[in-house]
Amino acid sequence: MSLPVPTTEAPPVGVVGLGQLGGSLAAALVGAGREVRGWDVDPAAREAAAARGVRVTRELAGVVVLAVPLPATAAALDGLDVDPAATVTDVGSVKEPVLASVGAALGGRFVGGHPMAGTERSGHAATDPGLFRGARWALCLEPGTDLRRWLRAAEVALDAGAEVVPVTAAEHDAAVAAVSHVPHLLAAALAAAAGEAGPLALSLAAGSFRDGTRVIGSDPAFVTAMVEGNAGPTAAALDRVLVQLGRPWPELVAAGHAVRTAPGGGRAVRVPLERAALLALGRAGGTVTRRLAAFVEGRVPEA
Amino acid sequence: MSLPVPTTEAPPVGVVGLGQLGGSLAAALVGAGREVRGWDVDPAAREAAAARGVRVTRELAGVVVLAVPLPATAAALDGLDVDPAATVTDVGSVKEPVLASVGAALGGRFVGGHPMAGTERSGHAATDPGLFRGARWALCLEPGTDLRRWLRAAEVALDAGAEVVPVTAAEHDAAVAAVSHVPHLLAAALAAAAGEAGPLALSLAAGSFRDGTRVIGSDPAFVTAMVEGNAGPTAAALDRVLVQLGRPWPELVAAGHAVRTAPGGGRAVRVPLERAALLALGRAGGTVTRRLAAFVEGRVPEA
Repeated sequence: MSLPVPTTEAPPVGVVGLGQLGGSLAAALVGAGREVRGWDVDPAAREAAAARGVRVTRELAGVVVLAVPLPATAAALDGLDVDPAATVTDVGSVKEPVLASVGAALGGRFVGGHPMAGTERSGHAATDPGLFRGARWALCLEPGTDLRRWLRAAEVALDAGAEVVPVTAAEHDAAVAAVSHVPHLLAAALAAAAGEAGPLALSLAAGSFRDGTRVIGSDPAFVTAMVEGNAGPTAAALDRVLVQLGRPWPELVAAGHAVRTAPGGGRAVRVPLERAALLALGRAGGTVTRRLAAFVEGRVPEA
Repeated sequence: MSLPVPTTEAPPVGVVGLGQLGGSLAAALVGAGREVRGWDVDPAAREAAAARGVRVTRELAGVVVLAVPLPATAAALDGLDVDPAATVTDVGSVKEPVLASVGAALGGRFVGGHPMAGTERSGHAATDPGLFRGARWALCLEPGTDLRRWLRAAEVALDAGAEVVPVTAAEHDAAVAAVSHVPHLLAAALAAAAGEAGPLALSLAAGSFRDGTRVIGSDPAFVTAMVEGNAGPTAAALDRVLVQLGRPWPELVAAGHAVRTAPGGGRAVRVPLERAALLALGRAGGTVTRRLAAFVEGRVPEA
């Protein structure tokens, strides 16, 4: 796993929202030796975090992570005492709307983020310090992003066990539309059409139906907020799926099989601390696995 | 589990093709105390079956189960010495084409079947005597099907641990188009479109993409034969999915979620040994769980 070497003393981390994502992040960071403060509107979530070594307080500084539901992100800092020099990041599943609200308010202090982790469960009872281990964590590098603050946010993700994917908000939203938001819509359509086909069809449903519809077992309010919060890229990605469905079936099956069974792995790379180089790494499917003083280490898929 | 009570002495079972499905069935039936004979063109498959208590021979009688790949079904009995009074059934994933070939040749002696079981693995090394435990096993009751032969085939499925779903071949093919063949096409289109979206999208792919594309990891030749062998119903079922995808997303998400999370379970029923009553059970999403002398026991979903 990645073992980042801090270049200067690591700042404290403040986690706002101690549910599944925030609680798991706080617990992981405590385990990694970081100083972690946190707050949640729910006293039970605060108590659970305190029991895991989180200092429960409204006074936050260093890197402040907004881990609240997407619609609550813009107002997440209301009533908290946050150091005006703090770097603020988030974990929301869509990035352009958050950039337009929180990012517009905080300017260069905001770094949008999205860990590709989480399960159908939610709330502080679903906390798991290992939730981010080996997961990808997208971090937005906009033209106005302060690179030093981006690296501070990256250290938090690396300390939680994730690999960091440098992206722009627009690139992120297009990518997750294709690999996360459209799968939710396909699962919904598959389940709804089978429901219309009737009880006999549902009674013959086996593995391929279960796998293909699993994700629509999630809370419909959450799924709807996610796809509607990323409506443009999701509609475009859905159109690309519909084009695929119009291909001759043997071609379609072969193309899908080739993507699904492509070998994983990759080779190690060193990338200088520059926006363009980091974004190129992300576009190549690469990740940052370790931060060093003058560059980051990472890996990219084999060509 | 179902413990069928044989009404008269159970006839021997002959299994043609001792790969994953045939080998598993033969092993399950040996475990259930049935006399099992079997044949496979591959000597290694014959040896593995013999080691599990199957009598390896070309002389088959009683209920003969064709467990060969779909394109090989029509010629599966070539070179074998089969009792002219034997009931013949199969395990193919599409039923109308098999009815038109094998069924046309054998007339009322043929009972089309399809166990909703099997994994991405194949061959005799993937044999698992528990493969059919709790699985649904569709058995075709056409207007010309001899009900006594249908019940003999049903006993074989029940003895393997499955629940039997009485269907017509046309009903079966429409149902599996909706819950199995279309999911394969959706998985292929999702994977192919994500591949076109590029390495960044694939690098952010997580649980919803993995689940939604899992089934297209199967052998593309097998998948293509399956969807093309059931082209009409699959195209119709795909059209119904496309209609769903045109609904407003909040509606679509709610409808899909409701089907995916519908409660299971059901109530016990007794069904007389009549074609119409058995088919009505299947259409209601019900299954036969036990054969008795004058009726079958089963269960149907709660209304």
